[in-house]
Amino acid sequence: MSGSAASGSLGIVVTDIARADADVVAGLREHGVATVHEALGREGLVGRSITPIQRGVRIAGSAVTVLCWPGDNLMIHAAVEQCEPGDVLVVATTSPSSDGAFGDLFATALQARGVQGLVTTTGVRDTADLRDMGFPAWSGAVHSQGTVKATAGSVNVPIVVDGTTVRPGDAIIADDDGVVCVPRERAAEALEAADKRAAKEEADREAYAGGELSLDRKQLRALLDELGVRYVAQAEFEGIDPR
Amino acid sequence: MSGSAASGSLGIVVTDIARADADVVAGLREHGVATVHEALGREGLVGRSITPIQRGVRIAGSAVTVLCWPGDNLMIHAAVEQCEPGDVLVVATTSPSSDGAFGDLFATALQARGVQGLVTTTGVRDTADLRDMGFPAWSGAVHSQGTVKATAGSVNVPIVVDGTTVRPGDAIIADDDGVVCVPRERAAEALEAADKRAAKEEADREAYAGGELSLDRKQLRALLDELGVRYVAQAEFEGIDPR
Amino acid sequence: MSGSAASGSLGIVVTDIARADADVVAGLREHGVATVHEALGREGLVGRSITPIQRGVRIAGSAVTVLCWPGDNLMIHAAVEQCEPGDVLVVATTSPSSDGAFGDLFATALQARGVQGLVTTTGVRDTADLRDMGFPAWSGAVHSQGTVKATAGSVNVPIVVDGTTVRPGDAIIADDDGVVCVPRERAAEALEAADKRAAKEEADREAYAGGELSLDRKQLRALLDELGVRYVAQAEFEGIDPR
Amino acid sequence: MSGSAASGSLGIVVTDIARADADVVAGLREHGVATVHEALGREGLVGRSITPIQRGVRIAGSAVTVLCWPGDNLMIHAAVEQCEPGDVLVVATTSPSSDGAFGDLFATALQARGVQGLVTTTGVRDTADLRDMGFPAWSGAVHSQGTVKATAGSVNVPIVVDGTTVRPGDAIIADDDGVVCVPRERAAEALEAADKRAAKEEADREAYAGGELSLDRKQLRALLDELGVRYVAQAEFEGIDPR
Amino acid sequence: MSGSAASGSLGIVVTDIARADADVVAGLREHGVATVHEALGREGLVGRSITPIQRGVRIAGSAVTVLCWPGDNLMIHAAVEQCEPGDVLVVATTSPSSDGAFGDLFATALQARGVQGLVTTTGVRDTADLRDMGFPAWSGAVHSQGTVKATAGSVNVPIVVDGTTVRPGDAIIADDDGVVCVPRERAAEALEAADKRAAKEEADREAYAGGELSLDRKQLRALLDELGVRYVAQAEFEGIDPR
Amino acid sequence: MSGSAASGSLGIVVTDIARADADVVAGLREHGVATVHEALGREGLVGRSITPIQRGVRIAGSAVTVLCWPGDNLMIHAAVEQCEPGDVLVVATTSPSSDGAFGDLFATALQARGVQGLVTTTGVRDTADLRDMGFPAWSGAVHSQGTVKATAGSVNVPIVVDGTTVRPGDAIIADDDGVVCVPRERAAEALEAADKRAAKEEADREAYAGGELSLDRKQLRALLDELGVRYVAQAEFEGIDPR
Repeated sequence: MSGSAASGSLGIVVTDIARADADVVAGLREHGVATVHEALGREGLVGRSITPIQRGVRIAGSAVTVLCWPGDNLMIHAAVEQCEPGDVLVVATTSPSSDGAFGDLFATALQARGVQGLVTTTGVRDTADLRDMGFPAWSGAVHSQGTVKATAGSVNVPIVVDGTTVRPGDAIIADDDGVVCVPRERAAEALEAADKRAAKEEADREAYAGGELSLDRKQLRALLDELGVRYVAQAEFEGIDPR
Repeated sequence: MSGSAASGSLGIVVTDIARADADVVAGLREHGVATVHEALGREGLVGRSITPIQRGVRIAGSAVTVLCWPGDNLMIHAAVEQCEPGDVLVVATTSPSSDGAFGDLFATALQARGVQGLVTTTGVRDTADLRDMGFPAWSGAVHSQGTVKATAGSVNVPIVVDGTTVRPGDAIIADDDGVVCVPRERAAEALEAADKRAAKEEADREAYAGGELSLDRKQLRALLDELGVRYVAQAEFEGIDPR
Repeated sequence: MSGSAASGSLGIVVTDIARADADVVAGLREHGVATVHEALGREGLVGRSITPIQRGVRIAGSAVTVLCWPGDNLMIHAAVEQCEPGDVLVVATTSPSSDGAFGDLFATALQARGVQGLVTTTGVRDTADLRDMGFPAWSGAVHSQGTVKATAGSVNVPIVVDGTTVRPGDAIIADDDGVVCVPRERAAEALEAADKRAAKEEADREAYAGGELSLDRKQLRALLDELGVRYVAQAEFEGIDPR
Repeated sequence: MSGSAASGSLGIVVTDIARADADVVAGLREHGVATVHEALGREGLVGRSITPIQRGVRIAGSAVTVLCWPGDNLMIHAAVEQCEPGDVLVVATTSPSSDGAFGDLFATALQARGVQGLVTTTGVRDTADLRDMGFPAWSGAVHSQGTVKATAGSVNVPIVVDGTTVRPGDAIIADDDGVVCVPRERAAEALEAADKRAAKEEADREAYAGGELSLDRKQLRALLDELGVRYVAQAEFEGIDPR
Repeated sequence: MSGSAASGSLGIVVTDIARADADVVAGLREHGVATVHEALGREGLVGRSITPIQRGVRIAGSAVTVLCWPGDNLMIHAAVEQCEPGDVLVVATTSPSSDGAFGDLFATALQARGVQGLVTTTGVRDTADLRDMGFPAWSGAVHSQGTVKATAGSVNVPIVVDGTTVRPGDAIIADDDGVVCVPRERAAEALEAADKRAAKEEADREAYAGGELSLDRKQLRALLDELGVRYVAQAEFEGIDPR
Repeated sequence: MSGSAASGSLGIVVTDIARADADVVAGLREHGVATVHEALGREGLVGRSITPIQRGVRIAGSAVTVLCWPGDNLMIHAAVEQCEPGDVLVVATTSPSSDGAFGDLFATALQARGVQGLVTTTGVRDTADLRDMGFPAWSGAVHSQGTVKATAGSVNVPIVVDGTTVRPGDAIIADDDGVVCVPRERAAEALEAADKRAAKEEADREAYAGGELSLDRKQLRALLDELGVRYVAQAEFEGIDPR
């Protein structure tokens, strides 16, 4: 590659990307966003500006990433061809944009290729149709503003999605709680940790349902004491504090 | 009119407004917000701060516009009388306000007059009741904060609703994707363009469902090439780019 | 208490709090957020950043308050023990935080103690589980970001929830419209006023459904006149105003 | 004009616009934004997202308007040619954009044509240079993000600038308090009203500096009484209200 | 007081309020916002939406509080009369409002009474004049939008200013960093703690200027170790972590 | 490293990092943020939430990165030791936080080590002192809220600063326009491109100052024509378009 632009990551479509292991991704899907995020050592969570347009759906797949110019969806057209069954399309823009860069025609094309869903920092439109089609989406906005096809961007370069770096082939898990990205190389490790965490949480759940307090189960009374937290009856407290 | 205030648009109730043609409005309703916005040459879309309080409802009607003082819903009372069957009430304030200026009593009065729904930059309240009544609303907020009836505003003057000018009698279409305003004089033209667009999109949809790529169908490969977009296999790309 | 920190309200768990009368709270629940807010003289409403994660649920109960450090849910663990059947847990942080400080394990523990639901300025996670369990929540965010248990806060001290002060034992009513806080000492007075208001609104509703205008029913025509509002036919208005 | 796009306001450069009277504009400049907004009957004020990049500068001139695609400054290039001495360039985009569409090169070109300054909903960059050059700007953002020149917009069509409609030739006044737009046809009337208001305010200022209370000067004690406002000594108030 | 509204805190002007001790307030002024906030056990800080319109000014005084209806500054007129030399006027609204409820005429009246400055959640206008007059202000917005005088509010009741409760007579300190509120009863204690903290910080400052590390001075190396923080040379780290 | 947390990037201090070439960094400083961002092919720009606390200062240096827990500045203490003369400290948190994690004591320590300035997504405090000291800062907020030292984070791992990835040793340039990050490996290339761009812009500036239009200089008339942009006199336009 030559020229200053070509040295950066605009103007490139990366093909033949490595993907996360399909069985591992399927396992991560079972655990959901919150558990996988914890299992990953509390990393990888996409910021809360990205929200689902539907309820009760959970997906997991390998990321095909797209970097678009604001108000321009040209590179999504290029990205469709790079998608394989089980993938999740992940779109960001070079500067903030809530335009409706994605609608039911893209969803039709992606569903024909077996893509599981969409994560985008942009807006989506035709949301009633997307829900009817069963094509789930997590987006930064719902808006109908049309886009053009005039400026180069890239496909399958690393992008940032509300604070989190997503590289092509990383495992994306998305549900009602939001979206988490697991680096491809760490997917197996994350699944193993998530399995352990889920087992531990199941035991906690049973204990709490039976009335045990987390203060006792997690030995937090000693920590409160060490931090100087005092227990005071309301009558005494209001006598001391004039507010 | 005399006096400086009267020269502006505060303190006026405009009566006997012209409305968009009812058949044309009904036709626009079939197409929905995204298609009508495109058919209008990508104009008229209300900004994305205005969102529906329900899902799966689409309405279309002629706008009766209201300009209120923040925290004051006096002029909505005056506007009810100006509404006719099929209208959509559209409310804005002279400065930003999320107060709950509209609730189930107004909805009852409007429903009795055959009004189709509400679009407002303010907050709405009694939202569970509105959904139960089948009176749809698109609003800038859901909030219960009460309002007063103390300051003059106007009815049926041009208002700005999140970036878009709405004049009385303009056609308003609202659905899960948001709200679009079609200038009354351009409604027929917009319907014609929307019909054409819908036909073209139906053909696209079928092609994409069958696996055709938009890169080919829309001749975008040549554009990518012209813009200098390069295809690079991941192995090669990562060898070149150290990140 | 000694030391400068102890003079403030951090590092304290207040026990044995007084609660709002259970029958009064049950009565307030019938009226819902908008009516109670009005009955209280338009006070007590929590700001609109706190939204429900479910639809169609209304709760009312006495507040157990929690003040946490951002990114830290230690004091929620301490607060569970202070909860009694019928309570509502209300959580704020010392500075803004959208982290997912609350999830299904806390909900399990609180449900086991008969707690009605959660109001929090922080994020919640496991929202699909919370809905499945029937544990309602109103929150400042939905986000999975994990929290630590490292820093002292307080339980049952007065806190501010999006602009509204909530003291332990105050009555909290929450529904699709948001959240309102009724000071414990004013709960009976608020219920009485709400009963009166509901009766009056029922009469209004009937009148409006029958086509009566609020302009007439509330004698607003005289007010419009006094404020200088003029009625002008559109033809005349457009002749005068060039816009 | 033919074709659906051409029926709207995208893709047009309007030339030979009428401008506000230069002497009137100069008079409005003396009064500043707050006074002119009041004189106009409290209309015309641009929303508060548009802020100055400098302090202590006040300008007034006729608007040359530009409507750009987000991330694209092509139409600003076209607009420069339409500018005359004393004009103010006013830029908006078809959907929200904070990109740095304007910098020191445009300022150089505009200064060469005698343009007074810039008002834009987009970002500006080279702000230190703009201050050094003495070319004032009011913008929705300061950001360096580069833009392209790829998509059509318009020059000298009506645009919406944070809630306020600006038509070509309208008088724009901008200072530390923000921006106000005076419709061209109402500029003389606004100046007359502003002169009166300024005289009245000067008398008020003197009275208040001398210790007179506005409660007395504006006869507000009677209004407070009519609204039911009560005066209560703190000792009595705290006895009544337990908070 | 009778009637439901009168039971709350709207419609009341509280007179003859107790104020913080003037010498203590003067002492707090020396320390500034950040130090006083720390000295108070990290309480009392007003949220960051309230920012100064000037630089390099620090004030301290007793709060006279005002609660206004949005878009209405009637109660500020009533509050002027309640102000004494050294006071700080603190204004909030019953729901969010950025309107310019305060300008140079109020500043003139307050300056005539010896008031030190303004803290308001609303907008201010005439900001260039306020700076020229030397009347400092901290506000939620700079905006010229005019307000009315039509609806009752209160003076000298507790209000919430971006998350912090301010009661009449509390000590307000404001500078370039923002605003802190010290409960009147805790002012002396806060001053004593601030004096101690300032002395300690002076010693720290000297040590750090001389090159001592806080890691050593505050014994933080042991804490890092206990928390499991590891030191790894970059070469080793990049060998281990593929990102 | 062992254990699931250790596999991620929390709990690590990376030492002995490679830095950008000092002469190249000095060269980039001359060009400023906007030019360097363009020279880099329009990459690397930090989002506009990060703003300077001072005016008229420009810095450039190698990044020492810090990842903190929200409300916790422990890792900044650890980072000071890793700083060398000419560095820029760059701080982010694991979830959004506006707390005042940085103040004059840190600035004193960093100035003693020759650090040029601070870029942080968190709040800063003691801003008047920082300006007096001549220690520049770019931050996500100005706020005094105090922080704790209780939870592990990392030093010199890649972090995301408002949408842009910053790796340790990358070149950071910051001025009145914001902040740009140049990947260490691309610094020389960026400088070369910036030199070229600056020369071209100087020629443009001279041409525009002399009255040449960019429409001509950049051959944009043909592009406008190709895009279908039409020139219409206002009289004709208003005849056609009824608005």
